[in-house]
Amino acid sequence: MVDEVLSNSPLKFQVLHEDTGSRARLGSLKLTHFEVPTPVFMPVGTQATVKGVRVEDLHAMGYGLILSNTYHLYLRPGEDVIRLHNGLHEFMNWDRALLTDSGGYQVYSLGKLRKLTNKGVTFQSHIDGTRFEFTPEEALRFQEVLGSDIAMQLDVCPPSTAHKKDLERAVDLTTQWARRTLEARTRSDQAVFGILQGGLDRDLRARHAEVMRQLPFDGFAIGGLSVGEGPQQMWPMVDFTAPLMPREKPRYLMGVGMPLDIIHAVLAGVDMFDCVAPTRVARNGWLHTRRGIISIKKARFRMDNRPPDPECQCPVCQNYSRAYLRHIYMAGEIMASVLNSIHNLYFYARLMREIREAIRANATTELLDAYADSRSHLED
Amino acid sequence: MVDEVLSNSPLKFQVLHEDTGSRARLGSLKLTHFEVPTPVFMPVGTQATVKGVRVEDLHAMGYGLILSNTYHLYLRPGEDVIRLHNGLHEFMNWDRALLTDSGGYQVYSLGKLRKLTNKGVTFQSHIDGTRFEFTPEEALRFQEVLGSDIAMQLDVCPPSTAHKKDLERAVDLTTQWARRTLEARTRSDQAVFGILQGGLDRDLRARHAEVMRQLPFDGFAIGGLSVGEGPQQMWPMVDFTAPLMPREKPRYLMGVGMPLDIIHAVLAGVDMFDCVAPTRVARNGWLHTRRGIISIKKARFRMDNRPPDPECQCPVCQNYSRAYLRHIYMAGEIMASVLNSIHNLYFYARLMREIREAIRANATTELLDAYADSRSHLED
Repeated sequence: MVDEVLSNSPLKFQVLHEDTGSRARLGSLKLTHFEVPTPVFMPVGTQATVKGVRVEDLHAMGYGLILSNTYHLYLRPGEDVIRLHNGLHEFMNWDRALLTDSGGYQVYSLGKLRKLTNKGVTFQSHIDGTRFEFTPEEALRFQEVLGSDIAMQLDVCPPSTAHKKDLERAVDLTTQWARRTLEARTRSDQAVFGILQGGLDRDLRARHAEVMRQLPFDGFAIGGLSVGEGPQQMWPMVDFTAPLMPREKPRYLMGVGMPLDIIHAVLAGVDMFDCVAPTRVARNGWLHTRRGIISIKKARFRMDNRPPDPECQCPVCQNYSRAYLRHIYMAGEIMASVLNSIHNLYFYARLMREIREAIRANATTELLDAYADSRSHLED
Repeated sequence: MVDEVLSNSPLKFQVLHEDTGSRARLGSLKLTHFEVPTPVFMPVGTQATVKGVRVEDLHAMGYGLILSNTYHLYLRPGEDVIRLHNGLHEFMNWDRALLTDSGGYQVYSLGKLRKLTNKGVTFQSHIDGTRFEFTPEEALRFQEVLGSDIAMQLDVCPPSTAHKKDLERAVDLTTQWARRTLEARTRSDQAVFGILQGGLDRDLRARHAEVMRQLPFDGFAIGGLSVGEGPQQMWPMVDFTAPLMPREKPRYLMGVGMPLDIIHAVLAGVDMFDCVAPTRVARNGWLHTRRGIISIKKARFRMDNRPPDPECQCPVCQNYSRAYLRHIYMAGEIMASVLNSIHNLYFYARLMREIREAIRANATTELLDAYADSRSHLED
């Protein structure tokens, strides 16, 4: 039965090695447009561009799978423009693999702009206030128009700290919508993932995972985390949920995260990640290093001619000083966002490479030490 | 005498061919860091970065000489930071040739923030209001710290439409400051250019050129144009002034311009140009084509899947549609500024290549036809 499903799947996922010291797994994820090693991090191109970073840079950094947002593209540029370009790949000039989220998270984060029913969700555009109805069928249909390698089901994503009743309703509706999503599939070259909800409630998490894992999705995601709770609450919940997901299918933790969040989730057995953080914090002048975050606007970097991260081989660290990056940041130059974003995405690419090497070498626990200070601010 | 001066010059300028149908000349300008063919266009990196465009992109487009601004760098990051990086080249990671302007234009454009005396100019920083005094000696000294291949003398640059009395004073002071600049020189690896003023007054232009051409500058610039007058006033004045400048030295028209302005000035015998326009209009959504300017925000490009310029070989036109560029512009994405700027600088690089080819082929008048519509808005 499982083999049957797998052989029909538009994706091919192989676990190549399991870590001896944790549940971390090294794998390979073959999608319609590209094959990527796992664990994998997906840069986010919300509006059909990874903010500040060119396609050529993403290629050079080795990224083979990026995420884009159904909700945003549905509103702008809209379906007719996407169709004119035969889908999102051609539109944004990205020939490798793409995952599109379902819009569930964005629709929920609109707060009072949306209204939830069993059928779906109605919401008002954040751009011009136009009213839209989004259903599981419509979310998948539009993702089929986008032509992403992986589509996500429309889910209901409350804050992780919501009341149990709201979390229960989210779980139940997400399950109903999961079945409707699978029934609506028409493309054989697009994988579809189901999403597990349940907030920080272990019973709900277990119950939802048990129901969802029976459904013939090509992979599963942990949703409803990184939406209000801190890492000390998130990490145990990932630890609890990941093993409840099918071993033979890719496991994706949505919207996560900082380097240490990713390492913790990898140790729990998660394979895929996405997060806007590396490019967003870059635009605010934060540069990642293993030894801590550099907030480039700080006065002490004015006369610092060292590279941001002396260990880093990225084109920014190879060619520019902290003083230069501070100067263009303070001067309000576009190039500050560009160079900081390239550095941070390079840092994440290296992090994922080191994670995969550590799994292969059964040395994953050393990762926690290596990145222990990565969340703090660099003090030298 | 002239040969003597030339052999000591930090630059080597050779006129390789003179057009039979105009005063246009094809040349080669060998500077301390790089050799460029002329006529040459210099992208502007006001604050030590060409806005939105990476050094690698400038290299790929073939740019070998860019301009940066003394005034801005003097205020921020300041001399200590530049010295820490051994000059501007290392600071901004640009290993080809650099020209720095003197700050004269910026100081003047500050309006009531500056006060002019025979000695120099006092002005208040546009950043924090701090009061500075700038003299010809200080302007050159700081450019020697910057280590540019070509330094410009501090000049007095009134609007071209100023009263004759103001224009006369600008001419006289600029001449005095020219002599002081030459006396202040200490670097043998940096060329220094004098600047011709005189506004739109032919008598003053002729008088100033006659005095200035006696001074042992490595090249001369036409200043005081493109500061308030239209092309119909500027073109004849360039036509009048260029032949009054030494034939054997490079001639630079400061702050110009649009493609047709450049072509007209080349026909008058000008060799060097700089302008913020290609990157500035790019950030406002304007894309150059020979057939006219595309204002990408216009609704009619929403469903237009053609490249911006079907004739163009740039990486933007090769990979993106007008609809995509409109989408990211409307969405306020950084990438809109980046891609539009690359396209426009590529367009200027091609323009200069075509100009040089036309001179070599004695076919320069055809350039005026080829670019006749380049200033209008594209209507298809």
